[in-house]
Amino acid sequence: MNYQHNTVQAIEWSGRQLRLLDQRALPSQKIFLEYGNAPAVAEAIQDMVVRGAPAIGITAAYAVVLSAIEHGARLNWRQSVLRDIERLAASRPTAVNLFWALNRMRQCLEDADVAPIDSLLAEARSIHVEDIEANHHMGELGAALIESGDVITHCNAGALATGGYGTALGVIRSAYARGKIGTVYADETRPWLQGARLTAWELLQDDIPVTLLCEGAAASLMSSGRVSWVIVGSDRIAANGDVANKIGTYSLAINARHHGVRFMVAAPTSTIDMQAESAADIPIEQRNPLEILNLGGQRIAAEGATAWNPAFDVTPAELVDAIVTEKGVIMNPNTRNISALMSGD
Amino acid sequence: MNYQHNTVQAIEWSGRQLRLLDQRALPSQKIFLEYGNAPAVAEAIQDMVVRGAPAIGITAAYAVVLSAIEHGARLNWRQSVLRDIERLAASRPTAVNLFWALNRMRQCLEDADVAPIDSLLAEARSIHVEDIEANHHMGELGAALIESGDVITHCNAGALATGGYGTALGVIRSAYARGKIGTVYADETRPWLQGARLTAWELLQDDIPVTLLCEGAAASLMSSGRVSWVIVGSDRIAANGDVANKIGTYSLAINARHHGVRFMVAAPTSTIDMQAESAADIPIEQRNPLEILNLGGQRIAAEGATAWNPAFDVTPAELVDAIVTEKGVIMNPNTRNISALMSGD
Repeated sequence: MNYQHNTVQAIEWSGRQLRLLDQRALPSQKIFLEYGNAPAVAEAIQDMVVRGAPAIGITAAYAVVLSAIEHGARLNWRQSVLRDIERLAASRPTAVNLFWALNRMRQCLEDADVAPIDSLLAEARSIHVEDIEANHHMGELGAALIESGDVITHCNAGALATGGYGTALGVIRSAYARGKIGTVYADETRPWLQGARLTAWELLQDDIPVTLLCEGAAASLMSSGRVSWVIVGSDRIAANGDVANKIGTYSLAINARHHGVRFMVAAPTSTIDMQAESAADIPIEQRNPLEILNLGGQRIAAEGATAWNPAFDVTPAELVDAIVTEKGVIMNPNTRNISALMSGD
Repeated sequence: MNYQHNTVQAIEWSGRQLRLLDQRALPSQKIFLEYGNAPAVAEAIQDMVVRGAPAIGITAAYAVVLSAIEHGARLNWRQSVLRDIERLAASRPTAVNLFWALNRMRQCLEDADVAPIDSLLAEARSIHVEDIEANHHMGELGAALIESGDVITHCNAGALATGGYGTALGVIRSAYARGKIGTVYADETRPWLQGARLTAWELLQDDIPVTLLCEGAAASLMSSGRVSWVIVGSDRIAANGDVANKIGTYSLAINARHHGVRFMVAAPTSTIDMQAESAADIPIEQRNPLEILNLGGQRIAAEGATAWNPAFDVTPAELVDAIVTEKGVIMNPNTRNISALMSGD
């Protein structure tokens, strides 16, 4: 069975190099950048060449393979690879999939006398393939929750943000294929405009109709009664069901509850951080104010103005109707039902 | 007493021409455009050279003076001026101040044998001066409601949007002068970025500290507990207290209520439309999708994507804590207390 999504492939391992689709240049240009060492990949993650929690995890896993290839012949190879892992872990703080993937890769180093390049590559490939499989499974599970209507999504939680197919967009793809969705409304998602640049592009590749809107218009759209679900991804879910995701998600969740619109989070279990009791334990990345003060490289705001630019916000569990994972669906998430899912009860 | 606001003057009558500060070019360029006839002014309103409900009303009033000057010597002067008034009324549909001001100007034509240029100019000047006076009075009344804390504002409801001083920013100026406000948070306000381009610029001219944020971040900011009030202007208030304002306002109001943050609308009584029973009677302008699909003149969204671009939304009266007018403050607005204020009871 071919789990690869045909139209968009943001992360490719090509022999001894990692190829990343430069998501900053989309949709006007489709540029692949090649990486031969881990620090360069860490910088690419930081600079948002690649973004999206699962995609960051997969990318970091391949970067550890690059590190082992680069340093494997040296006596102190282990120290060098571990240093690269630390560098990768420091690239972005919020998405937990990054740390989850690096932990899996680190375990391959244990008890190894020589750099285990083959087993590291096998592990990175597994992380990649498992993510695509998880997305397809979540797509089925999430689509089953949807009866009919239009949906709103935020940022890009699609093939570009994952190994392929997508979390939120995976659910949307599956539900659209079953005729359950009329129009996908995509928040343009300031300041990086992932909705306008990435989600619209990705859905149009699959001939799924997409209508953009400014974040501020979502409440007005919901009041029209056309929207049945808000469907988003996540960068980290705490053990109690609090959901960290792209800034703007929390506002959507409040608006959804106000209008009786349901709120779904689609994320693999690698996004659930059982070490974080609640949102209070999730670090929120603050990014450069210039991302808001400038527009297309030009200063847009008055000189002297500053900006508050958190990359993520937290939606409390009580505003979440469903968390869809590859292991099953959690309705009205809380510490108990999340713990049960994670422990396989 | 000098009611002119010193730092920003967006509308100027200079002898026989109307000068408008081109708000599309701010803050990088301060360009004044000159207008000698009413159709050109109507186009300027449509193209957002000037924006903001009270400012549009004042601008249209001066445009009627231009029309009387142009056509006054002709036999069919009245017909020509009335046609220009119709053209002006068609420039933008939502802000009721436009129709209110044009009605006042039309009344000057009644029973006039020759084009009453002097009385039209006097009426336009009155509309202008009364608006500035109203803003200062609202500033006092609104500031009295604020105890202390940070505030959020949306779009630009400042000197640029009015005759001078501002509605929401008038309240903020007055409250800041009394030491009641720490930081003013300004939504950048997509798609025209009035917050980033206009509000930040205007507040910095008065040395009021301003921090920009994306609309999507406002809920997260409110959850921090720092914000005591959301303060906005309005384009039209229905007789029951429903408030039409820049798209994104309704979402702010829902978020404010969710967090126990209070929600204030500052608007002169010329913004209250007693003919509109509720929001259902307020036309909402739909603008060109390209305002969202393009960025700085360049296509940003994938080809094939469309956008939903309403310029305004409606906040139901039950989410509004206070409407501040020059005639007094209406707490928890409804048909009864608005009617009482408007009839002077």
